[in-house]
Amino acid sequence: MQPQSTPSLATLNQSTVPAAQPRQNSTQPSVTAAPPQPTSDFIARHLGPNQADIKQMLAMLGYDSLDALMTAAVPVGIRLQEPLQLDPGLNEQAALAKLKAIAKQNKVYRSFIGLGYYNCVTPAVIQRNVLENPGWYTQYTPYQPEIAQGRLEALLNFQTMVSDLTGLPLANASLLDEGTAAAEAMSMAYGLQKKHKNNTFWVSAACHPQTIEVIQTRALPLGIEVIVGDHEAFEFDQPVFGVLLQYPASDGAVYDYSRFVQQAHDSGALAIVAADLLSLTLLTPPAEFGADVAIGNTQRFGVPLGYGGPHAAYFATHTDYARKLPGRLVGLSKDACDQPALRLALQTREQHIRRDAATSNICTAQVLLAIMASMYAVYHGPQGLKQIALRVHRLTVALAQGLEKLGYALGQASYFDTLRVEVGPAQPELIERAIARQINLRMLDAQTLSIALDETVTLADLQDLLDVFNLSAVELPRAAELYAQAQLNIELLRTSDYLTHPVFNQYHSETEMLRYLYRLQGRDLSLTSAMIPLGSCTMKLNATAEMLPVSWPEFSQIHPFAPLSQTRGYQVLFQQLSDWLAEITGFAGISLQPNAGSQGEYAGLLVIRQYHQHRHQAHRHICLIPTSAHGTNPASAVMAGMKVVTVACDQDGNIDVADLQAKAEKYAENLAALMVTYPSTHGVFEAAIQEICEIVHAHGAQVYMDGANMNAQVGLCRPADFGADVCHLNLHKTFCIPHGGGGPGVGPIGVGAHLVPFLPGHNLVDTLSGEQRIDALSGEQRIGAIAAAPWGSASILPISWMYIAMMGADGLKQATEIAILNANYIAQRLADHYEILYRGQQGLVAHECIIDLREFRKSAELGVDDIAKRLIDYGFHPPTMSWPVAGTIMVEPTESESKAEIDRFCDAMIAIRLEIQAVERGQVDQASNVLKQAPHTVSDLLTEWNRPYSRETAVYPTPWTRQHKFWPVVNRIDQAYAIATWSVPVHL
Amino acid sequence: MQPQSTPSLATLNQSTVPAAQPRQNSTQPSVTAAPPQPTSDFIARHLGPNQADIKQMLAMLGYDSLDALMTAAVPVGIRLQEPLQLDPGLNEQAALAKLKAIAKQNKVYRSFIGLGYYNCVTPAVIQRNVLENPGWYTQYTPYQPEIAQGRLEALLNFQTMVSDLTGLPLANASLLDEGTAAAEAMSMAYGLQKKHKNNTFWVSAACHPQTIEVIQTRALPLGIEVIVGDHEAFEFDQPVFGVLLQYPASDGAVYDYSRFVQQAHDSGALAIVAADLLSLTLLTPPAEFGADVAIGNTQRFGVPLGYGGPHAAYFATHTDYARKLPGRLVGLSKDACDQPALRLALQTREQHIRRDAATSNICTAQVLLAIMASMYAVYHGPQGLKQIALRVHRLTVALAQGLEKLGYALGQASYFDTLRVEVGPAQPELIERAIARQINLRMLDAQTLSIALDETVTLADLQDLLDVFNLSAVELPRAAELYAQAQLNIELLRTSDYLTHPVFNQYHSETEMLRYLYRLQGRDLSLTSAMIPLGSCTMKLNATAEMLPVSWPEFSQIHPFAPLSQTRGYQVLFQQLSDWLAEITGFAGISLQPNAGSQGEYAGLLVIRQYHQHRHQAHRHICLIPTSAHGTNPASAVMAGMKVVTVACDQDGNIDVADLQAKAEKYAENLAALMVTYPSTHGVFEAAIQEICEIVHAHGAQVYMDGANMNAQVGLCRPADFGADVCHLNLHKTFCIPHGGGGPGVGPIGVGAHLVPFLPGHNLVDTLSGEQRIDALSGEQRIGAIAAAPWGSASILPISWMYIAMMGADGLKQATEIAILNANYIAQRLADHYEILYRGQQGLVAHECIIDLREFRKSAELGVDDIAKRLIDYGFHPPTMSWPVAGTIMVEPTESESKAEIDRFCDAMIAIRLEIQAVERGQVDQASNVLKQAPHTVSDLLTEWNRPYSRETAVYPTPWTRQHKFWPVVNRIDQAYAIATWSVPVHL
Repeated sequence: MQPQSTPSLATLNQSTVPAAQPRQNSTQPSVTAAPPQPTSDFIARHLGPNQADIKQMLAMLGYDSLDALMTAAVPVGIRLQEPLQLDPGLNEQAALAKLKAIAKQNKVYRSFIGLGYYNCVTPAVIQRNVLENPGWYTQYTPYQPEIAQGRLEALLNFQTMVSDLTGLPLANASLLDEGTAAAEAMSMAYGLQKKHKNNTFWVSAACHPQTIEVIQTRALPLGIEVIVGDHEAFEFDQPVFGVLLQYPASDGAVYDYSRFVQQAHDSGALAIVAADLLSLTLLTPPAEFGADVAIGNTQRFGVPLGYGGPHAAYFATHTDYARKLPGRLVGLSKDACDQPALRLALQTREQHIRRDAATSNICTAQVLLAIMASMYAVYHGPQGLKQIALRVHRLTVALAQGLEKLGYALGQASYFDTLRVEVGPAQPELIERAIARQINLRMLDAQTLSIALDETVTLADLQDLLDVFNLSAVELPRAAELYAQAQLNIELLRTSDYLTHPVFNQYHSETEMLRYLYRLQGRDLSLTSAMIPLGSCTMKLNATAEMLPVSWPEFSQIHPFAPLSQTRGYQVLFQQLSDWLAEITGFAGISLQPNAGSQGEYAGLLVIRQYHQHRHQAHRHICLIPTSAHGTNPASAVMAGMKVVTVACDQDGNIDVADLQAKAEKYAENLAALMVTYPSTHGVFEAAIQEICEIVHAHGAQVYMDGANMNAQVGLCRPADFGADVCHLNLHKTFCIPHGGGGPGVGPIGVGAHLVPFLPGHNLVDTLSGEQRIDALSGEQRIGAIAAAPWGSASILPISWMYIAMMGADGLKQATEIAILNANYIAQRLADHYEILYRGQQGLVAHECIIDLREFRKSAELGVDDIAKRLIDYGFHPPTMSWPVAGTIMVEPTESESKAEIDRFCDAMIAIRLEIQAVERGQVDQASNVLKQAPHTVSDLLTEWNRPYSRETAVYPTPWTRQHKFWPVVNRIDQAYAIATWSVPVHL
Repeated sequence: MQPQSTPSLATLNQSTVPAAQPRQNSTQPSVTAAPPQPTSDFIARHLGPNQADIKQMLAMLGYDSLDALMTAAVPVGIRLQEPLQLDPGLNEQAALAKLKAIAKQNKVYRSFIGLGYYNCVTPAVIQRNVLENPGWYTQYTPYQPEIAQGRLEALLNFQTMVSDLTGLPLANASLLDEGTAAAEAMSMAYGLQKKHKNNTFWVSAACHPQTIEVIQTRALPLGIEVIVGDHEAFEFDQPVFGVLLQYPASDGAVYDYSRFVQQAHDSGALAIVAADLLSLTLLTPPAEFGADVAIGNTQRFGVPLGYGGPHAAYFATHTDYARKLPGRLVGLSKDACDQPALRLALQTREQHIRRDAATSNICTAQVLLAIMASMYAVYHGPQGLKQIALRVHRLTVALAQGLEKLGYALGQASYFDTLRVEVGPAQPELIERAIARQINLRMLDAQTLSIALDETVTLADLQDLLDVFNLSAVELPRAAELYAQAQLNIELLRTSDYLTHPVFNQYHSETEMLRYLYRLQGRDLSLTSAMIPLGSCTMKLNATAEMLPVSWPEFSQIHPFAPLSQTRGYQVLFQQLSDWLAEITGFAGISLQPNAGSQGEYAGLLVIRQYHQHRHQAHRHICLIPTSAHGTNPASAVMAGMKVVTVACDQDGNIDVADLQAKAEKYAENLAALMVTYPSTHGVFEAAIQEICEIVHAHGAQVYMDGANMNAQVGLCRPADFGADVCHLNLHKTFCIPHGGGGPGVGPIGVGAHLVPFLPGHNLVDTLSGEQRIDALSGEQRIGAIAAAPWGSASILPISWMYIAMMGADGLKQATEIAILNANYIAQRLADHYEILYRGQQGLVAHECIIDLREFRKSAELGVDDIAKRLIDYGFHPPTMSWPVAGTIMVEPTESESKAEIDRFCDAMIAIRLEIQAVERGQVDQASNVLKQAPHTVSDLLTEWNRPYSRETAVYPTPWTRQHKFWPVVNRIDQAYAIATWSVPVHL
């Protein structure tokens, strides 16, 4: 049995190749030259099809290489001639080791800085089973409620939690951060008060400075005047449409705002209160002193600091303002069997429907973080939260008493968890002593410090703080003693109940909590189950190796305003990631601050606005937007103070160049920008893109490129090279940050050299010079902060860093090529069965394709919904529905889906075509058929079966569905119907 | 709306208590004294019922306090009078911080020590989604195959992988470690060859020393003589029943064993080969040179080193020996619908059926680790594994060439990944130079080193190694150059295929791998879904905070034979955990080496055996075992060289003291031990336990206590106090290590002071003195090693450490009390509906209860299976079936299940009783009813429905099942039927 002689290396190469088709990475050296890297490389793990699949798919399309396909698909004029100048991809271990070395340059000190950000304990059961669980983080936005009941319930919990704690009946399902939430509130108030023709907004100087800056940035283009003042001094002697208060104040003071709010109301202004949720377990809630809107950060409810984000902000108001509310709202409806079912409510407010008349440009929110915060409340319950708040407060009282014994004057009579300490000239020494103990304090001014405590603070921490301030080492009671003697010191004590719903009162053992999380998870389709072929949304692999660093304390446990000397690791990460993104896009400068794609759009347009102003062309305010654009485009343009003018598309879905030319000429004088998506939202590489950019430039305007479809460009062409001046990048689409069920997103912008001076700044950290400041706003060219944290959602940037580091230039290019191959393969496989709308040169699509379903409305009374929901029965998440063209679906397979999965999807689509045909031919009833009644649930199978198709056809239309499929728990949901209003949160 | 005055603290106490019952931990101070610890404490998270529930349950049982219930349930004579001397419980963060400080005392060096343990890369997708996923680690052993098809498939993959790589057709689904696998192979060979009346076993001196020691330990009590020799010298001049070879040898040499094996066969001996799986991707497999058995460790297939374990060992042989095979075996059968389905095969070999005639005492295996190793093969595939092996080999060749250029003589001509280097007197200097570079090498003797490379080795590591050996800093080609020039140097090159099954060739992209893992996970019921009320198996919470440290590199990345100076953290952990376990049990000494409960039993009996021998009473060999004992007891006794004599039980399920007295007297001369479980396997606190122990002691024997039911003792009574001399503890039952779907387990033993000198030792590490040695076996009193690694499954001991640290004395006692409360609550709720078999004093059970179903066989032709499988339809995992009494089920709720879950279970049982009644009354057919046809699948719902019950009754028998239930993917499985034999692995 034993070989008589040793075979040569040549025979070894073939001898043990198994019968089945093995995966072979094209970049893998041959067997005779095993690679020096420790393990197989990442590129092949990221890509779906293997080499054999790729060959087969290319053959089917009639190309003999990926390069030939790219040459055919991508306009020659814009093709990148050189490879990207990036290092070769590292394997997972090497990339993790490299990033760990960077992370270790961050110093994890104890930050008692406050400013709306607190250390907190993420309950381990939530960390592992939500934050670190692909069953929660790889989900898409819950537009398909039938397969999203789990996170919709979690978001309803979030709304209930916010509503209960603030006392306001209507709460949305998260905004991006406290600063933008405040800005949204200002915008809403402005909109509501427009009839009064008053454009002044009053902001308390006691608000967090970053909130004030974001408001100022936002106010400017809208023509709102912002007054920053003292609520104890302002007498409403000038008309204002709204006021913003911080509760407790930024320096910790707890003020009784009731009189001030009354005055505001009397003067016709709306009162907005930025409130800390934890404090509201003890303090009178904003609604009870008259607030019209409450906003704030929910970070301290178990979400890591992460150097600024992502966290979920909240927004609560009266039900009267429901149709003006920014952001997502979950409400209760019913399904086809009259069972209660959750869905996103009142979507008509939103940008994807209202476009430039939307309440806000917000699209992706912070779903994953909102879920974490809501689960923190579920886990602790009202009693547990109150215990935490009481303990934090008591520690603060103990600290206050110690400081007073040491002779320090405290700046406020009433406080919750933050003290203002007058330290006089001792400040530098105190700061030094604190740093020596790895403690960060906040400098309010040159002679005043503040100290914010939180749930992680121990008696040892308290002792350390007292030691810091005990300059003369005088005799002082120990921390434990002070704590034991501390009495409550709260004047506005809350008397009303909160979190009385059973969901906050029955899952307090870890076992029950774990099962609740899994029960909800089981109701949602995520990437762990099947392809999510969302056009434009790029649901690619979120590799585990990319996700691991997010949990590292060196990234997650850093306060956004920790001294830069402690965040060198983050600075290196930002620099490297920015350099890479600059190389990938061709731009001269990158801002990582925008914490969502929509924020990127907004920031980019502000940069353009600032550019024009700086060139004394402030009058340029017209923004051209093709009819095919994402709804966020016009919404963002309006926020940036521009007026939207629509440009037509031709019948191939391309921008109508003649119309563009005409509009550009017509508005030449005032033309500010064109917003264009590339490849187009129709999934096509428009050949005229260079010409389009030239026309815009010729009329003195700037080209804003929407980066939503960047996944089709990386490594093949670069926006800056063919004429874009600004482009945002969706790191959560193209660069692997998971969608988290509807957020977080990250939307950095790249800009040409002429726009670099105008990139977003931040008043607390100078993001350009790298120095930290405590003074007020600077008067630079830069637009102000557009997000609360200087680098936006810093803690998830490692995901994109890992992706680029592991793929390298070659891998990134391959990813793009395979994304285009996969899309064209689908288009080709389905072409005999469906009309494929819009193709580019050579009849090829880019990275996605639109399937036209409009004919079936006539031929069979079937709409997009019927086909999309029927796909659920086959185990798939429906593609994008009726966008960018009503009556169609748009499919983007991404490069990470295997040929097997794509074939399964195509088989399903073809099978559905036959089901449609049966209706068309009158073989089955138009009103009752397998499509109209889709999706089908297990409960359906229990009913008296009088349908013109079998149970099997309903739920197991293909053999593979018997092996594995995702089961919806409700039937088709009536999007319009509302069982209960959002004002009465009801659980299933 | 605002309160006019601040309420007093007294009103605050009540004011915000919500309507629903809040959870309140009894140890929590009142609101007026918020605790100084940062977060709510862990005890209340671990326990299921809250204070209100406890009150209600006690009231139902007629007790006014837990203490009163305990006084009634536990014999007064054995009650602990003092609280356990343990620190108060820490909250999760504090415990994690404390453990982290301990962990940091370990130094994570690069270990090139080999000895069967290698650094490896756990693919991130497997780490996060298997090792760190409660959906995989909280499952029970797959005795209920209908709800275990996922891990059964994963284990079938494991068997296929082993079978393919070794070339032997039959492989089991894991053993504990390579040493015990070798010992099991010896035992099997001994059993098969018994007719030859030959008791000599030959072992190659080239085997790993720890394997040799485990074999020697095992051989002694069985009367097997072990010869250790040189396979090139041994001429079979004396008869041997079997031989053991290492391939490649421990020092790395690759020998051609074919002639030797032929000689063994010619002389009538079986040939056992301990083989490294990775090397078998390149080397001729054992079967091809005649091996009858292959065994080995699968650790390097992606399972962390973990300072020795847990890892899965494999065992492969010919199909002829199927009925002699130790351990679990997965095979293909069919379900009630004739669909293929997996189940454990040939269980008649196993201890729970064969007792003292079993092939082995193994019960818990290493399922979770076997799954990880199999998934590593699925992820890499044949091509990927070969690439890894080639690369490791090439690095070794490069190292060899570098060393030769430096003038070192290499000890072997042919090698795979390990070199033997003759270093002469330079050894101390070389070791020092290596340590300075954080590198560990193996000392073969005073002048010889060995270096074992692995998949994590980089060119930088290679360079470091060369630098270590380059004492005179001579000119030498760089590592990269040597690597580039390295040629294969393998003589026994493999020519046969392996891993050709599609499962190893289609999940190579991370997306596909992720979905495969989730698909399998979705077929298994785990604690994430519902209570697993397994009698005796204690499926309590495996808290996330307990699990987190397992992934810390300071614990996971340490070689078991790393110098003790690098493992101070582990030593501290071992010491603290041992001290705590000693306090909990009352014993004087603890050994952490046994890596399963069965190993604990075996080790404990060996200690007793050694004790008798040491007292010149070697003739004592009779082991008394009650009829009610776990099957592992008699199986272990036989392995320890004892003869089993059965002791009767009385009608109450207690040991028949008269019979015990009679047997003790009858065998007084030769009496070695009594094995007794407490509380009894019938779930009762036997009042006579002290008397029982006294009888045994009076006859010169020792009391071995089976610790399976320790969950009912902790904090209430201690085995050592009431007469036990030895007790094993199931850390995976009582102390929160998860069951992992059937392993790992950990079974430390505690012993009285008189037995401490005999606790297990280890020849490579002196576990008592803490010094490391490289010399041969010592001649001490201790029994030799009973596991391959000195501290067994070291890397999961942090789980139990965390549990004890977080619970403290008070929490541990509460856990026991609630476990007893929960069991009695169930017994009480079901008492009107079922016969509860066996109760102790006051009619109370201990922590579990037995429900008698025997009458239904007569009254309704229904057996245990029918009722157990019907519970699956209600969403529950069935309890223990027909053990310890045939025709009954045994239920252990544990302290972690909430009252709500327990009520749900009771409701289900009561509903089932009504279903039984309907059959009894002839209202439904005896042959076709909802019980006989359970469990029901979705597919059932698709069939023509001609059953005498509705579809709804079948699958949604209660309202809550509509909200959430686990769906089996197959119908009832025919345990006896075999579609394909195990020799032809077939996948579904």
